[in-house]
Amino acid sequence: LRAKFFDVIIVGGGVIGCSIAYQLSKQGKQVLLLDRGKVGGESSQAAAGMLGVQAELDIDNPLYKLAKRSRNLFPSIAEELREITGRDILLQHNGMLKIAQTEEAAIHLKEIVKQQQSLNEEATWLTKEEVLQIEPSLSEHLVGGIHFPNESNVSAVELTTAFAEAAVHYGTRIKEYSYVENLVIKNDICKGIQTNYGEYAAEHVVLATGAWSSKWLPDPLQTNTIYPVKGEAFLVRTNPVPIKKTIFGNGCYIVPKKGGELLIGATMKSHTFNKEVSLGGISELMQKAMEILPCLSDAEVSSMWAGIRPMTSDGIPIIGPHPEIEGVTFATGHFRNGILLSPITGHLVANQLLGIEQEQLGLDVMNPNRFFRQEMVMSK
Amino acid sequence: LRAKFFDVIIVGGGVIGCSIAYQLSKQGKQVLLLDRGKVGGESSQAAAGMLGVQAELDIDNPLYKLAKRSRNLFPSIAEELREITGRDILLQHNGMLKIAQTEEAAIHLKEIVKQQQSLNEEATWLTKEEVLQIEPSLSEHLVGGIHFPNESNVSAVELTTAFAEAAVHYGTRIKEYSYVENLVIKNDICKGIQTNYGEYAAEHVVLATGAWSSKWLPDPLQTNTIYPVKGEAFLVRTNPVPIKKTIFGNGCYIVPKKGGELLIGATMKSHTFNKEVSLGGISELMQKAMEILPCLSDAEVSSMWAGIRPMTSDGIPIIGPHPEIEGVTFATGHFRNGILLSPITGHLVANQLLGIEQEQLGLDVMNPNRFFRQEMVMSK
Amino acid sequence: LRAKFFDVIIVGGGVIGCSIAYQLSKQGKQVLLLDRGKVGGESSQAAAGMLGVQAELDIDNPLYKLAKRSRNLFPSIAEELREITGRDILLQHNGMLKIAQTEEAAIHLKEIVKQQQSLNEEATWLTKEEVLQIEPSLSEHLVGGIHFPNESNVSAVELTTAFAEAAVHYGTRIKEYSYVENLVIKNDICKGIQTNYGEYAAEHVVLATGAWSSKWLPDPLQTNTIYPVKGEAFLVRTNPVPIKKTIFGNGCYIVPKKGGELLIGATMKSHTFNKEVSLGGISELMQKAMEILPCLSDAEVSSMWAGIRPMTSDGIPIIGPHPEIEGVTFATGHFRNGILLSPITGHLVANQLLGIEQEQLGLDVMNPNRFFRQEMVMSK
Amino acid sequence: LRAKFFDVIIVGGGVIGCSIAYQLSKQGKQVLLLDRGKVGGESSQAAAGMLGVQAELDIDNPLYKLAKRSRNLFPSIAEELREITGRDILLQHNGMLKIAQTEEAAIHLKEIVKQQQSLNEEATWLTKEEVLQIEPSLSEHLVGGIHFPNESNVSAVELTTAFAEAAVHYGTRIKEYSYVENLVIKNDICKGIQTNYGEYAAEHVVLATGAWSSKWLPDPLQTNTIYPVKGEAFLVRTNPVPIKKTIFGNGCYIVPKKGGELLIGATMKSHTFNKEVSLGGISELMQKAMEILPCLSDAEVSSMWAGIRPMTSDGIPIIGPHPEIEGVTFATGHFRNGILLSPITGHLVANQLLGIEQEQLGLDVMNPNRFFRQEMVMSK
Repeated sequence: LRAKFFDVIIVGGGVIGCSIAYQLSKQGKQVLLLDRGKVGGESSQAAAGMLGVQAELDIDNPLYKLAKRSRNLFPSIAEELREITGRDILLQHNGMLKIAQTEEAAIHLKEIVKQQQSLNEEATWLTKEEVLQIEPSLSEHLVGGIHFPNESNVSAVELTTAFAEAAVHYGTRIKEYSYVENLVIKNDICKGIQTNYGEYAAEHVVLATGAWSSKWLPDPLQTNTIYPVKGEAFLVRTNPVPIKKTIFGNGCYIVPKKGGELLIGATMKSHTFNKEVSLGGISELMQKAMEILPCLSDAEVSSMWAGIRPMTSDGIPIIGPHPEIEGVTFATGHFRNGILLSPITGHLVANQLLGIEQEQLGLDVMNPNRFFRQEMVMSK
Repeated sequence: LRAKFFDVIIVGGGVIGCSIAYQLSKQGKQVLLLDRGKVGGESSQAAAGMLGVQAELDIDNPLYKLAKRSRNLFPSIAEELREITGRDILLQHNGMLKIAQTEEAAIHLKEIVKQQQSLNEEATWLTKEEVLQIEPSLSEHLVGGIHFPNESNVSAVELTTAFAEAAVHYGTRIKEYSYVENLVIKNDICKGIQTNYGEYAAEHVVLATGAWSSKWLPDPLQTNTIYPVKGEAFLVRTNPVPIKKTIFGNGCYIVPKKGGELLIGATMKSHTFNKEVSLGGISELMQKAMEILPCLSDAEVSSMWAGIRPMTSDGIPIIGPHPEIEGVTFATGHFRNGILLSPITGHLVANQLLGIEQEQLGLDVMNPNRFFRQEMVMSK
Repeated sequence: LRAKFFDVIIVGGGVIGCSIAYQLSKQGKQVLLLDRGKVGGESSQAAAGMLGVQAELDIDNPLYKLAKRSRNLFPSIAEELREITGRDILLQHNGMLKIAQTEEAAIHLKEIVKQQQSLNEEATWLTKEEVLQIEPSLSEHLVGGIHFPNESNVSAVELTTAFAEAAVHYGTRIKEYSYVENLVIKNDICKGIQTNYGEYAAEHVVLATGAWSSKWLPDPLQTNTIYPVKGEAFLVRTNPVPIKKTIFGNGCYIVPKKGGELLIGATMKSHTFNKEVSLGGISELMQKAMEILPCLSDAEVSSMWAGIRPMTSDGIPIIGPHPEIEGVTFATGHFRNGILLSPITGHLVANQLLGIEQEQLGLDVMNPNRFFRQEMVMSK
Repeated sequence: LRAKFFDVIIVGGGVIGCSIAYQLSKQGKQVLLLDRGKVGGESSQAAAGMLGVQAELDIDNPLYKLAKRSRNLFPSIAEELREITGRDILLQHNGMLKIAQTEEAAIHLKEIVKQQQSLNEEATWLTKEEVLQIEPSLSEHLVGGIHFPNESNVSAVELTTAFAEAAVHYGTRIKEYSYVENLVIKNDICKGIQTNYGEYAAEHVVLATGAWSSKWLPDPLQTNTIYPVKGEAFLVRTNPVPIKKTIFGNGCYIVPKKGGELLIGATMKSHTFNKEVSLGGISELMQKAMEILPCLSDAEVSSMWAGIRPMTSDGIPIIGPHPEIEGVTFATGHFRNGILLSPITGHLVANQLLGIEQEQLGLDVMNPNRFFRQEMVMSK
């Protein structure tokens, strides 16, 4: 290969790619990070930045522990990134209320509280009155809710940018507007990549390409192994800010961001890369938000957008070595949990490439080989 | 007055002020047009551009004949403006369907058809099947509708800009970002105006200041004689375009604009100058639009905005001489009909100032003195 | 192939792809048009829309005749597209002034006039005084200029959209946000394409992918055969509009668009896909524009943007069959002439695929095989 | 007056009005703050947020001490506002380099250093080499520069919003989109104000209306006592950030903002309220910035804007009681120093209205009566 040599090339400058670049370059590796457009320009800038572990994942989900571990990394990551870059990722430990708007939902949520408490997790069932005492602006059409005091949120944009800047601080080279046409493979070993700017050689290539990852998979796996799920969201301004905690209701969450705006998300539409805001999607989300928090009716809609999340066929991210091509590592498929899982993913992938032994932490379950084994069966 | 002298100063560069400037300067008058911001920057750029006479006004409304006369002026105005400015005001004679979504509404609309037909106006009642034959994308939840084949629409922005450019062509001087602080009045005769750029003298001052007109009225008339009514609207893109005619339903109209976008309006909220798009307002409008035209659910929302219309206490514009101050003429209060009435208003005011005799055309009913007489009674 | 079958799949929804889709579907072909983003979302929306043949191309350039032929197609294309879509492509026959700002430039331009006149082309040398008589707002720092009365301009955005809508009218199916991962090739015959939405089969695949075309070329041709050249431009508003004709000066052109804005372009920077507006690029362009037209100093800058043009190593577009893969046709590399050449490219490619015999019109010189032959030599 | 009664009504929701509202309501006063548009929507959002005392003001300027006092208030204000509102005003003590690009400028700057040092102010002359050691990306076309280590900067937008939110926290009521038509005056005593929403009564009215203040002055003072000076500025993104300190050069300053963008300002054009960005203004500013920091040539221009600053005929703000109307207080005319002077202005005006005795701090020199005395002379 007639090209500059790097220790690691990371394809994709979303929050996952940036977090990995940060950890690797901090350990002294020569890293090249490529993005087809701008760093953080896709789902990382569309995300709500909720760090919802208990509210988002069942306690027996294989990601649960991993997600909790990742959430716990945020305070130190926030501190580190502030020191290196001067940037504030706007971490807020404001807690979350997951509310039940029907009796049926209440039964389900009470079950969750039991499970959580049986494992000594902090989660409390609140009656309607107790919920309204904490958040008096909520609609009275609710039965009760769970209070998760440890759930928090960050600015997804600031986090991604801070990871990128901190990576650059440690020597990572970033090339935006770079298209990776192909991996350069010889004898099932990846030697580097071919881009619109020429070729680059590297010992390792990490594919952190989010919803645009299926092209790296063999043909029979391309259709459904990893696929796009569009999400629409919007931002409103109100004065004064009517809630303190993140509210998680039926098909809708409302996140009070530092600075006073409320971020409201998110719709789900599978198998499309279309990033337009649809009339049907956004207006249904608006209705749901007002059912939870009626005073939003007078709020100013300050912006609307859509992003494309990477979903996998089993709902679990794909992290680990390519089973057929040496030197290629996947780090994708984080669906709605990319911001939350970005710190731990950075550590896991860096440790793996550096040959540092680590707790399994669910690595098994995320291993890409689970799909390739299937494929062999399919092909037979 | 130590100031440049004009024949007429027009305060307010919306579609009304620009139309008057055009007619006056075409007749050789020296005209100065002032706007606090940019020409066409307020409700003229927020308007849908529907030319709805039969669909918007009752047949016994004193504005009905005036509005019809104004609508009929559009083809020749479009031609004139194109010749002078090269600009296309995007006039479309696509007709309008006013639909009944309930049996009750159908009874009301059938009554309108009778009235219209009794005066030989073109208006036909269509059954549900007939409506759906013309516009097969409409929801089947409708009872029937009126077809008004003569209703049409224009681009409100292009019309306003074309009037302004045609006025400049005939010598009108436009000063944007000019604040008129006060009228200069001596012995109940207006001698000119005082602005942030200094004073300007003129024989006549025309107040075409839309929703911001109450400051020109005496104190007891300021609160409710003329007041702002906010309207929110939005634009969607669909492909292919699902309707040909303007659809007028319950609290919502959908206008297919030249170029393929659909403009959907409009909410009404009185007594506010706030131009933010509210969550409650816009989402209700979105729901109504989808009830009429379900395929809008997949349409891309390309923009949203609000404008401030000038409403009067009796719903009729205020056009004519100030009853107490010589040299001052009102031309305001057009509410939802500013675009439609702009050609006729330009003619009426110009003729009045030029001393040209004209048909009454409803001038009596629009005369400002109707409020001042009232005021005298109030003060007694 | 387990996929829907089309006669022709066109990859790339810029003005070239849309023009080809229009011609083919008008002839009854089943066409699928795919775009990675939105139709017309890349250089077609960044273009100035100048139809500059005599001002842009040397008379002995192999594209000259083709370009002239294409320019002459615009009046009928405008008419056709208006009839089908109702859309006005804003064709203006306003002519062009190519000015000399130095004596040296004047000598060169006079030479061009001679060449043009020797072939009976309409082009006249004007002295400084004559130039200023036609365009009195131009700076007096000029020596003279050529008047090309037949040069004209269109709206690049309206043209692209109108081609797309007219194609849809004749049955073309458009899928936006579609990524073509690979051509499906068996025994050197292309059977269709593989996309993020699955596979599509077709008899022919047309590659109209502009600056993003090198991925379709064999490895040794990827670097320089076709490459991106970024161009920055901006739009200003002035009142009144100071020029009537397009002005072509030193490194800068100023196009008066219908509607009164002036479009000013364009910088050139090779080998980058970065679409940001750079401080150095845009400010130099601004300085050049003010040297030509000093009154621009007070004009409002209403927007700035950049687009990525497809340049080829010999400056000639790449149009014609893939020399090594049956069923694949190139239609790319139009550099600064994509809008101008779009009508003729649509005809040429459609005729070729339909097997209609046609004049050569420079097809030879644009044949992709010129590069592949080279490659064989290189590889030896 | 048939209206709600307040202790103090503040007209104008820029940084000055908001700072005064904060101090007064913190002291228990009932405050109403009105803005014609949105809070912070005019020059407060256009400001660069530099806290430049030594770099902006001559040491014998009557504002010098006041400005220094105000700058010193920022750390505690930042702390207070963060506690109350959770908002970070992004205060940065990064220091400033005022560079000399010519020998002549160097002589002048060395003189300033002497003056500063004679009063024990921190200011050091640096040679070219020393400047380039601190900021190696600066152009070598410089002679030397002054280092002011105590100069700092904030986010103008965050500061204004935080003052407003903190005021609301203490009970201030904010009404946006409110037009104050007139002061209500009886026997030379102000009783309240008349707005588009009706009348409001108050003991005191504070006029913090920035460049739009001349309407409150008697006729002979309206033209030049206080007038608008437009300023254009722009923001660029670079990676990595090339400077650490604010650079102050010839007609141009470059402020590195927290978050990595560089804010570059600012042009000056008197006597216009036009907020458009002009081609001549912005391109000259761009050229100056690149002369100082050549690597900006590759930076992305991310936004451009203009704001309207309030200048006075003697260059000093107008703060203090109206000499002819009891109950009215001016707080306007801060020109380029509104952000810097906002903390001290809040204290001064609040103390004055609360009858708290205070150091003079230049109150004399800012007293509005200096113009009114003049007027009496003029009128004689």
